[in-house]
Amino acid sequence: MVELNFEKSVDGLLPAVVQDYVSGEVLMLAYINKLSWEKTLETGQAHYWSRSRNSLWLKGESSGNVQVIHDILVDCDSDTVVFKVDQIGDAACHTGHRSCFFRRVHQGELVVEGKPLFDPAQVYGSK
Amino acid sequence: MVELNFEKSVDGLLPAVVQDYVSGEVLMLAYINKLSWEKTLETGQAHYWSRSRNSLWLKGESSGNVQVIHDILVDCDSDTVVFKVDQIGDAACHTGHRSCFFRRVHQGELVVEGKPLFDPAQVYGSK
Repeated sequence: MVELNFEKSVDGLLPAVVQDYVSGEVLMLAYINKLSWEKTLETGQAHYWSRSRNSLWLKGESSGNVQVIHDILVDCDSDTVVFKVDQIGDAACHTGHRSCFFRRVHQGELVVEGKPLFDPAQVYGSK
Repeated sequence: MVELNFEKSVDGLLPAVVQDYVSGEVLMLAYINKLSWEKTLETGQAHYWSRSRNSLWLKGESSGNVQVIHDILVDCDSDTVVFKVDQIGDAACHTGHRSCFFRRVHQGELVVEGKPLFDPAQVYGSK
């Protein structure tokens, strides 16, 4: 198995950049630990480590919007990866937007680009 | 100025994904703190925080390969950014490769893709 340099970070977590495997759009960034790295390689579906829940996170476990891995790139220091994925359900962001990066800096302000593809309240339930 | 959520991380550093503004290729990932974020917005050239030197880092200060900012995207939690850049000198990686992500996972091994565009010893000097 490909070894990553998890010791590089104080908390054992490394960033994973998630990119649409066709368009190259950056969909999100999440964190992986050794367990989520192994699960991703084993299953071909993106697994992360949820910092808020402090637990293994199969992306799409609630929404059904899993990320099917097409390619994995590893950087020069083995402390960052790129997952090139097929985003099932089109939207990667919990807000319903395709990408978490749906805001652009314009003249010192954030401008929202595009519309949500789903209603988060329907997918995750109201809280 | 656009405020980011630097308090989200224990060390005050947030990841910046660096993407070619034309092709969408992910060139590198580096970290920003408040100072490097401000310098990037002020100057239009990508500034990071070097974790190894613990100092402000104008990308390209040694090699001349600066990154001219074309667009900046901010994620849903304001704790990650995407810099869409024009990579002067073509190569972003200190190894001389265009992208730091020049290795791909293939059948459980890392396969190098592409050739370096410059000789690091010539650009940075031998150490």
